[in-house]
Amino acid sequence: MSTHPITLTDRVRALTSRFMQRAGAFLHRLGIHPDVITIAGLVVVVIAAVPIAQGDHPLGALLLVLGLPLDALDGAVARAMERKDRFGGVLDSTLDRYADGIIFAALAYFFAVRDEYVYFLLALAALNGSFVVSYVRARAGEADLSVKVGLFSRMERLAVLLIMFLIPGLLIPGLILLAVGTNISAVQRLWYVRRHLDR
Amino acid sequence: MSTHPITLTDRVRALTSRFMQRAGAFLHRLGIHPDVITIAGLVVVVIAAVPIAQGDHPLGALLLVLGLPLDALDGAVARAMERKDRFGGVLDSTLDRYADGIIFAALAYFFAVRDEYVYFLLALAALNGSFVVSYVRARAGEADLSVKVGLFSRMERLAVLLIMFLIPGLLIPGLILLAVGTNISAVQRLWYVRRHLDR
Repeated sequence: MSTHPITLTDRVRALTSRFMQRAGAFLHRLGIHPDVITIAGLVVVVIAAVPIAQGDHPLGALLLVLGLPLDALDGAVARAMERKDRFGGVLDSTLDRYADGIIFAALAYFFAVRDEYVYFLLALAALNGSFVVSYVRARAGEADLSVKVGLFSRMERLAVLLIMFLIPGLLIPGLILLAVGTNISAVQRLWYVRRHLDR
Repeated sequence: MSTHPITLTDRVRALTSRFMQRAGAFLHRLGIHPDVITIAGLVVVVIAAVPIAQGDHPLGALLLVLGLPLDALDGAVARAMERKDRFGGVLDSTLDRYADGIIFAALAYFFAVRDEYVYFLLALAALNGSFVVSYVRARAGEADLSVKVGLFSRMERLAVLLIMFLIPGLLIPGLILLAVGTNISAVQRLWYVRRHLDR
């Protein structure tokens, strides 16, 4: 029932898997629980949200980049533990939703204090779109359908965010791309569910 | 594995089920597809968002109330069709997420234009909390666990919204209740998942 297009997430995973496996085993020997790494990843995003809200976007991007390895390490440590860790998976993807929400809320704040309400609304559209892209996947998963179609899954969203925060002049184009792209991805996923369930 | 506390949703459903069954059969005979009703429900929320953003909260609440029956009718028509409608279920809950997001985005806008940034952030906290409450349920459902714990599922959130929009003086207390309550519910659900998966 499911298709598996190769996403940016898959590529990054393939490139870093050997290293992550070793790092995961190492942290596991140190006695560090994967859930602690997951939570630390969210804390880094909360810290990054402050300069993003205040308008120092390159610093925000830098902090987000520093936090990125944590996103992969929690899974690596969980695998090193060699036991089922379904709760860890739920915690990880749930905190990813908070992370998305906090980044876009910080961006919405940045535009609101400058009275730039069109961009403000685009930031909230990107927030809603990002959430729904992930929600449709989980909700369809509940009905036993694996939905990975759509361009803007988490890695792609993060890549666009980093580029728009780091390169001058790309903040607004990136924002428009995210606001439109995430919502199109959401509709794509719904459409995929429609074609693959009940008919 | 799952517990079924009686929620506000259950109560409302029980009270209106006989009527909804008849209305559903009637609309089905008229040839109206449940997905059309689901989408119409979201359109009403989009219309309600305008007065909410502009500060006419009683009018926003009135429009939300007028849209409420649509929320139940789509399911009733689907049942009258007597066929599996798993896509309809996914569409319904996905558009509920957009509806939540749009209402809280409108409220965030209302506070932002008044430079009330603490309330603005509370509205966004309520938005994120509402999303995550529903996300954890779907994500845990993917792992075959039914999670319905937590006080602030959709009906309860809507009830608080209507009360705070309609009764003068309750806007801010209601907002605080939603910002805190939804996020506590999210943590409650995560905790429930932790206790019931993998151990």
